[in-house]
Amino acid sequence: MSKLVPPHGGKGLVCCKLHGSELTAEQDKAKGLKQIEISARTKGDLIMMGIGAFSPLNGFMGKADWKSVCEKYALADGTFWPIPITFDVSKADADEIKEGDEIALVRDGETYATMKVNEKYTMDESAKKWECEKVFKGKGEESADDKFWEIAMEDHPGVKMVMAQKEVNLAGPVKVLSEGDYPDKYKGVYLTPAETRAIFDERGWKDVAALQLRNPMHRSHEYLAKIAVEVCDGVLIHSLVGNLKPGDIPAEVRVKAIDVLVDKYFVKDNVVQGGYPMDMRYAGPREALLHATFRQNYGVNNMLIGRDHAGVGDFYGLFEAQEIFEEIPSFEPGKGLLCKPLKIDWTFYCYKCDGMASLRTCPHTKEDRVILSGTKLRKALSEGQEIVDHFGREEVLDILRAYYQGLTEKVEVKMQGAASGDTMK
Amino acid sequence: MSKLVPPHGGKGLVCCKLHGSELTAEQDKAKGLKQIEISARTKGDLIMMGIGAFSPLNGFMGKADWKSVCEKYALADGTFWPIPITFDVSKADADEIKEGDEIALVRDGETYATMKVNEKYTMDESAKKWECEKVFKGKGEESADDKFWEIAMEDHPGVKMVMAQKEVNLAGPVKVLSEGDYPDKYKGVYLTPAETRAIFDERGWKDVAALQLRNPMHRSHEYLAKIAVEVCDGVLIHSLVGNLKPGDIPAEVRVKAIDVLVDKYFVKDNVVQGGYPMDMRYAGPREALLHATFRQNYGVNNMLIGRDHAGVGDFYGLFEAQEIFEEIPSFEPGKGLLCKPLKIDWTFYCYKCDGMASLRTCPHTKEDRVILSGTKLRKALSEGQEIVDHFGREEVLDILRAYYQGLTEKVEVKMQGAASGDTMK
Repeated sequence: MSKLVPPHGGKGLVCCKLHGSELTAEQDKAKGLKQIEISARTKGDLIMMGIGAFSPLNGFMGKADWKSVCEKYALADGTFWPIPITFDVSKADADEIKEGDEIALVRDGETYATMKVNEKYTMDESAKKWECEKVFKGKGEESADDKFWEIAMEDHPGVKMVMAQKEVNLAGPVKVLSEGDYPDKYKGVYLTPAETRAIFDERGWKDVAALQLRNPMHRSHEYLAKIAVEVCDGVLIHSLVGNLKPGDIPAEVRVKAIDVLVDKYFVKDNVVQGGYPMDMRYAGPREALLHATFRQNYGVNNMLIGRDHAGVGDFYGLFEAQEIFEEIPSFEPGKGLLCKPLKIDWTFYCYKCDGMASLRTCPHTKEDRVILSGTKLRKALSEGQEIVDHFGREEVLDILRAYYQGLTEKVEVKMQGAASGDTMK
Repeated sequence: MSKLVPPHGGKGLVCCKLHGSELTAEQDKAKGLKQIEISARTKGDLIMMGIGAFSPLNGFMGKADWKSVCEKYALADGTFWPIPITFDVSKADADEIKEGDEIALVRDGETYATMKVNEKYTMDESAKKWECEKVFKGKGEESADDKFWEIAMEDHPGVKMVMAQKEVNLAGPVKVLSEGDYPDKYKGVYLTPAETRAIFDERGWKDVAALQLRNPMHRSHEYLAKIAVEVCDGVLIHSLVGNLKPGDIPAEVRVKAIDVLVDKYFVKDNVVQGGYPMDMRYAGPREALLHATFRQNYGVNNMLIGRDHAGVGDFYGLFEAQEIFEEIPSFEPGKGLLCKPLKIDWTFYCYKCDGMASLRTCPHTKEDRVILSGTKLRKALSEGQEIVDHFGREEVLDILRAYYQGLTEKVEVKMQGAASGDTMK
């Protein structure tokens, strides 16, 4: 019998993906339905629902769920859920859809799902703003009342994403028809909750930690994962392979860097590398809760939460994503979150400690510690410079150097093109 | 309100020490009672009961408790308890004591307790052997049926201690009158459960780990403590200041070494140093359970259990003291152990990992790791040699060097005395 934490919400893994003849029949049917082009975020959410990663959700949220999630961190039935999972369409499309209709959800020529629309509700500017303030506004400097909107509309990808939503939300259950190119593109890394659970069960794991990754894995991340390995049965190094903000390092590069790191610096039996298809919201504390929620579905009961988890800019306090786990209301048995935070402080290499440490374990000074800003790091990598000792593993840095140098070369090629008379588009 | 784990057994802290006028009255009364000289172990057990560290025990165990503890890890009333806490007297003394009598328990001229004897039971050779096999026999090589007794009577201090017990056990509640020289000798370090709980409460701690120490604290122990600091609210570095086996380093030296280590290498707010007066039993897995049990009384809910915890020789499997936590029976609500094991694998410094690691986190080879045998270490320290890098902190090694050089000088003085015609006694 599995010793793992049960999926969230008490209904087992709720997987909306169809298979076999059901799938082909639904694919045929979809061709005759009204086709709605979906956003990248919606595609990611559909696949998450398809594979059971968003259990117990079986579709997009209606207004009551949306409001309750924003206000009370709960679905209307009282089950914990931290971030609205909604689906937006234009008013023109919405006008052509009646409640009860079935529609096909497509992107780039691929039909990702069919959906039975059982609710339509308008999301006007003020509703979107209300959602953003509930979901994205934190305790960081840039979340201050007098600054939030001005800065967020420029610099908060999550806020911009919600504010760019179309005018109407459609709600209802979905049947997922495709996982896109994830299974092929990230073969062996793109794992469904059923697959990670099977791996954990086979290894006899009970206490499993997850490390959320959307950046390359340096010593600091490695330290978090290794603390988890020391105190849990194993760790899921879980990379976002969905969409990030511009400038972030692509998933292929990150996955390759994790491969080499696990190969050279981890005991393989204690690690599983996986990728999940959701897009980042950059919702800081609320996203940390979402990360824990869907990790529970993957069989994880300890979510590593470090400094500024899922944050962006200065919208969140550095440890707000840890604190929120104590601040959310308590839930009825069976309706609450069972995946607990594994909170780790700011981590770094310290010369005096002679190893990795955090502000909780290292009593020394800034001068003793290796701390490198992302900007300086990117500059050094793209210029092929040496990186300060103990910051990252050489094998990982080599992969990043190659990636950044490739980028630089591309820019140079473009610049040369521009110089020789071509226009840059 | 305290967020700490409640004391074991559901009766709060059961402290048998008297204070104020009750104490002086009982001290007066004790003078008129039959005086029984007690062993060092019994002295330690009495003080543990005095300060509530053995809650819910309020005296020495009768035959039903003794048998049930050996067989079922439980007092006769079903409350978890892993090792008998009994009090032995000679047959001659026992013959002069009737059930219902009060007696005074003394050692080295100090009266440690009075006891109301409510049961006498004979501990013949076979009863002692049965206890030893239940309590001290493990899964290590030296515990094999055909070797155990032969080796244990030579090399197992716990077995020797039980087998050397006198012929009769007395059971009954105690009133503790003295904590001996601990409060003075280890001022600031000798802390009662009420005191550690007050410190933890003041710091707002909920999840507290304890590191059991009976040896000097090297990098390996530091690593265990620091993992605990990373994942808990704080750690109690808890040294045995009771009696050890010959050759172990005295508590004063160990406490001094911990002081300097905490001062230079820990964030003080996250650490409490304490000492407890119990004598080592070297019962491996059973003692690990006892360590967790009394740590729960100190307010600890995570007992660090490393390699060969509380072991001696090869009587126990290296991780038997971790495994036993899963093997003990389950208990009725309120009667079980609430302090959980925080299990850590074999730890060391690894050059390739560039820091501390364990067999769970380091995939490298023996050649990459700094592992030093106790024997080689003692030799190097006593000869003032350099210790291999990364094994210990210089400040700690300096204290140990001074201690060992002091020992060496004493031996040399004796040897010179012998050479000049004095006899060595």
